[in-house]
Amino acid sequence: MKRLQELTRIDTRLVVRDFADPALAAALAETEVLITGWGCPHIDADVLTAMPRLRTVLHAAGSVRHLIGEAFWRRGLAISSAAQANALPVAEYALSAILLAGKAAFTLSQRYRLDQDRPGATDIAALGNLGRRVGVIGASRVGRRLLELLQPFDLEVSLHDPYVDDATAVALGAVPLPLDDLLRGSDIVTLHAPDTAETYRMLDRARLALIPDGGVLVNTARGNLVDHEALTDELVSGRISAILDVTEPEPLPAGSPLFHLPNVFLTPHIAGSLGNELERLGRVVVEELERLATGLPLVHEVRQADLATSA
Amino acid sequence: MKRLQELTRIDTRLVVRDFADPALAAALAETEVLITGWGCPHIDADVLTAMPRLRTVLHAAGSVRHLIGEAFWRRGLAISSAAQANALPVAEYALSAILLAGKAAFTLSQRYRLDQDRPGATDIAALGNLGRRVGVIGASRVGRRLLELLQPFDLEVSLHDPYVDDATAVALGAVPLPLDDLLRGSDIVTLHAPDTAETYRMLDRARLALIPDGGVLVNTARGNLVDHEALTDELVSGRISAILDVTEPEPLPAGSPLFHLPNVFLTPHIAGSLGNELERLGRVVVEELERLATGLPLVHEVRQADLATSA
Repeated sequence: MKRLQELTRIDTRLVVRDFADPALAAALAETEVLITGWGCPHIDADVLTAMPRLRTVLHAAGSVRHLIGEAFWRRGLAISSAAQANALPVAEYALSAILLAGKAAFTLSQRYRLDQDRPGATDIAALGNLGRRVGVIGASRVGRRLLELLQPFDLEVSLHDPYVDDATAVALGAVPLPLDDLLRGSDIVTLHAPDTAETYRMLDRARLALIPDGGVLVNTARGNLVDHEALTDELVSGRISAILDVTEPEPLPAGSPLFHLPNVFLTPHIAGSLGNELERLGRVVVEELERLATGLPLVHEVRQADLATSA
Repeated sequence: MKRLQELTRIDTRLVVRDFADPALAAALAETEVLITGWGCPHIDADVLTAMPRLRTVLHAAGSVRHLIGEAFWRRGLAISSAAQANALPVAEYALSAILLAGKAAFTLSQRYRLDQDRPGATDIAALGNLGRRVGVIGASRVGRRLLELLQPFDLEVSLHDPYVDDATAVALGAVPLPLDDLLRGSDIVTLHAPDTAETYRMLDRARLALIPDGGVLVNTARGNLVDHEALTDELVSGRISAILDVTEPEPLPAGSPLFHLPNVFLTPHIAGSLGNELERLGRVVVEELERLATGLPLVHEVRQADLATSA
């Protein structure tokens, strides 16, 4: 906040936790720019009525899907999001997961830990990251950043995204494929689709079955994209492995077998921005605010039409 | 081998497991180029005497340190190694380890698995890969490749290598630092020094103590570089964490606490080339052989002087 004040000379003393708090009414009535973050209450019609001078919301986080709705768009207000900055750590995490999955590092680590078991020649023959086939589902901000980060490696990368044409996919460094073909032809499948009605359980039982034996599913996006009953069956059988930073439900229920399987690397939703990475989100807001203050257009504006196909 | 024959039209039917096998004497006597790999017996004076026409050894693996000795150099023979190709997967593994270490992914995964424990705000505040300080020890082939791979991230990278001048370190994207300063100023320390008399236990008890509380040691190089008694003490106390693909001894003894600590991610020496990655080593040999056959100089020749400071 100090930096925000120094950089912008704008009054940022007001931190709102409850838009209905009567003590804030006067300040809200004057607010022209609202800065929001994770946990901010939904900005509904009543909230908007309380802020007649509001022009712009700057969201210091990723998706604005649950923050605003019809009332916001009807007022013709502008909103900007730090989703691009928030995409970086997720893509970094997915990259690391993919490269270690190619060596079966998580599974071999569990086996070495639990049984002091070292891999034999047969275990190793199928491993390695030379020509490993990586299927990226979704050219979202995270998906695109991941495709950039995958460039220096000798991987065969394919992409499924129904909203991206083939030439764009190729320009992003990937072979465009229909979803089922991508699943059939990938050693590692990584999910970067948004959580929308269209993508709900897009990896259902039939689709999970298309992943080749020994394949790995990486999910750093949302648990909702995968049928977890079917996924659990596939993982318990040992047919495929998974690296899951998100699940459905989340956290997993206490008895879930996913906690104990050697072919599952499970982390508690940490791929996205946390710790020092939050500063990156703050920087985006500061930069957008500077642009607003000097009459320049927002760089990270989100438009209503974007929400149909993005997070 | 088939590809080698197609590409080079050179007789590659002879596979040697024991240079002293009398059945091979005639073939050895004619050998001009010897292709070696992991597990090849040491090429001593007797072996060289058996191969009077030998001019060149092409090693389809990394270090040639234990393969050849004084007798080889005295004969004025040439040797080429696939160490550069072998460096790629190690650097990829180290990169992944570093990025996941910055999120404490291995430790948080163990805690989530074992205790179904999710991180609280305090755990998370110190995490993240924005401005995370990464200290690289050794601008070896692996170290240099890693420095390249670290470029797209918002990390602060330093390098210690007594054989690299400051301008080179800066050109490699790192701040040059003396070893003790690097250890004191790094959140994550990654070892890429060769295993030589000079580097034996370079991270001794006193040096390990310089790594800040909460720091992470990544070792994908050799166990010999670290005093493992001191390292075990540091890890048992929980002061630092480690990601260890190599140890001393290797494998670890059955009772080692390193198998069970939540702050240790242990893999059984898999960072280097394995599975499909071996093809990369073979390609280097094929390319060197093609150059030999057409009178071009070797690209990956190793000279005696190199062995003082490299693996």
